[in-house]
Amino acid sequence: MNQSPTQTSTAPAPLIWRDDHLAVLDQRLLPSEVSYLQAVNAAQTAQAIRDLAVRGAPAIGIAAAYGLTLEARLLAAAGHDLTRSTLEPALTVLAQARPTAVNLGWALQRMARLLDQPGLEWPDLLAEAGRIHQEERDSNAAMARIGADFIRPGSRVLTICNTGALATGGSGTAYAVIVEAWRRGHLVEAFAAETRPWFQGTRLTTWELAQAGVRHRLLVDSAVPWLLKTQAIDWVISGADRVVANGDTANKIGTYAAALAARAHGAKMMVVAPFSTLDEATPNGDAIPIEERPADEVTAPGGRALAPAGTAVWNPVFDVTPAELVDVLVTERGAIEHPDRERLSAWWPTT
Amino acid sequence: MNQSPTQTSTAPAPLIWRDDHLAVLDQRLLPSEVSYLQAVNAAQTAQAIRDLAVRGAPAIGIAAAYGLTLEARLLAAAGHDLTRSTLEPALTVLAQARPTAVNLGWALQRMARLLDQPGLEWPDLLAEAGRIHQEERDSNAAMARIGADFIRPGSRVLTICNTGALATGGSGTAYAVIVEAWRRGHLVEAFAAETRPWFQGTRLTTWELAQAGVRHRLLVDSAVPWLLKTQAIDWVISGADRVVANGDTANKIGTYAAALAARAHGAKMMVVAPFSTLDEATPNGDAIPIEERPADEVTAPGGRALAPAGTAVWNPVFDVTPAELVDVLVTERGAIEHPDRERLSAWWPTT
Repeated sequence: MNQSPTQTSTAPAPLIWRDDHLAVLDQRLLPSEVSYLQAVNAAQTAQAIRDLAVRGAPAIGIAAAYGLTLEARLLAAAGHDLTRSTLEPALTVLAQARPTAVNLGWALQRMARLLDQPGLEWPDLLAEAGRIHQEERDSNAAMARIGADFIRPGSRVLTICNTGALATGGSGTAYAVIVEAWRRGHLVEAFAAETRPWFQGTRLTTWELAQAGVRHRLLVDSAVPWLLKTQAIDWVISGADRVVANGDTANKIGTYAAALAARAHGAKMMVVAPFSTLDEATPNGDAIPIEERPADEVTAPGGRALAPAGTAVWNPVFDVTPAELVDVLVTERGAIEHPDRERLSAWWPTT
Repeated sequence: MNQSPTQTSTAPAPLIWRDDHLAVLDQRLLPSEVSYLQAVNAAQTAQAIRDLAVRGAPAIGIAAAYGLTLEARLLAAAGHDLTRSTLEPALTVLAQARPTAVNLGWALQRMARLLDQPGLEWPDLLAEAGRIHQEERDSNAAMARIGADFIRPGSRVLTICNTGALATGGSGTAYAVIVEAWRRGHLVEAFAAETRPWFQGTRLTTWELAQAGVRHRLLVDSAVPWLLKTQAIDWVISGADRVVANGDTANKIGTYAAALAARAHGAKMMVVAPFSTLDEATPNGDAIPIEERPADEVTAPGGRALAPAGTAVWNPVFDVTPAELVDVLVTERGAIEHPDRERLSAWWPTT
């Protein structure tokens, strides 16, 4: 089921709509291999999300929207009406693919709103998925400008996980802010944390930073607090998988460690997240479901088994950074300094 | 140059004196392979230390003492007198093998004191190396008892790196405290951080804890602050590579991250270190040399290249935990609560 398109000098698109399938860049093989999976229905799309072929909160939302569209196309071809009840099972399987990122549910809710339209046809769903995708591109560009305005000349920044084109379907969240600051000549260097257990920093962020020509160094996650203590870092810049009503943010495991050390050493913390990542319905970080993943992601780093067989593992892959450690939350509609329940509430839609 | 002794159900000895060579357990191959290197002179011993075949601050001190003995034996067999000047080059090559752990210099200074004796013979050096080895065993046993006295029934602890028999030549430092607390029935569970870049937690600590029957789970380093926030951990227990005059301690990269998060979440920090790790001559942590290691330890975790070729890396493999984050320093002569310059000064030899 793999195809191998020609490798280009810019990052390949994580998701490409191909009418009869969704081409999903298999990010588990990067950077050594550029290979696309073909998802032809909702279940295959959900599997690509669950297995991390596609990852990054915004990207999995877009993938889910296309996945629902694929299912609708199959049902329509078989003569079924496209209604909430015929598509409910597909919505469920997609929504359950990953628990922590809220973009998945957000994108599916947006798609589901169409299902009450009489005479719905599958190209209507495709158009909505395309709008979600395009809005992500636009919001990424806006956040890059808004976030980069905070980065003064001569700055050094740290980022975690991968938040570029691969993770978002646009130019990125935290990554796009870093690239924009570099283009403005305000950045001396970016540090990328390797980001266990999947090494997104090692495999993906270094690769994307190199393509953009941004000077950077890679470090192990456990060196992050030492970096912040000794290397005059100005900003920790991260994406988010969910920002809840009081401003607490869930992101890749290790983000909390970086935020805690940033506060201890006078660096500032910027979280870059589109509105699709904001979750007004969840009151605070304690209520965010934190995904725990299989043991072998820890015991066999990079696929090579290092721990004794049967070793028990604790593998939460997200953590929560409390709002009081976030200096600025950057969204496509503007920046919120010192986000809290009150400041965020002014931004929620008044519907 | 490899031999493969029969694997036993207890941990194999990291260092075995064999008269014509020092057998050095190649810890890079554990736990999948138990294999010994043969070092026949000081240079080979230094290489085994530099390449991490033997690691752990106390163990490399013992290895260096035996390495000097090997060199003396060769020189004596060739008819040379054993003096400071004939052995100075061997002392230098051994002392320079690793920069951060002070035990290496401490053991070599102790050996070097013999070199001014007229009529020195190599078995005198062997006897001194054997005394250093035996004293480590005795001090480990004492520290285990003293440290375990702080662990109340029902405790959960976190440790980092590997501090058991493999690292020390005795029963261990932090590890021995954990095993003793488990034997007393005071421990619910131990958590082991994987310890990038070399995965000593994944490969060695889990293996030793399993052999001792201690209930344990492994986690990625970046999850340590999240563990401390969410899992009711009572103690972070670490070894040390150097404890300096004001109580600052250098230890494996990530220890500072754990200490910072422990303080933020009400867990206590115990550093377990024999007097051979104490360095009165260095005033504070800023003066401790921090070893930086090659990029491939970060870019190729577990030996598999994951980062793009040529990725620049920042790879400090130790960090410094400031004394104010240490709740108790356990030595073989007793425990020092809230160590600082004044409290430590009372413990230095009055010579």
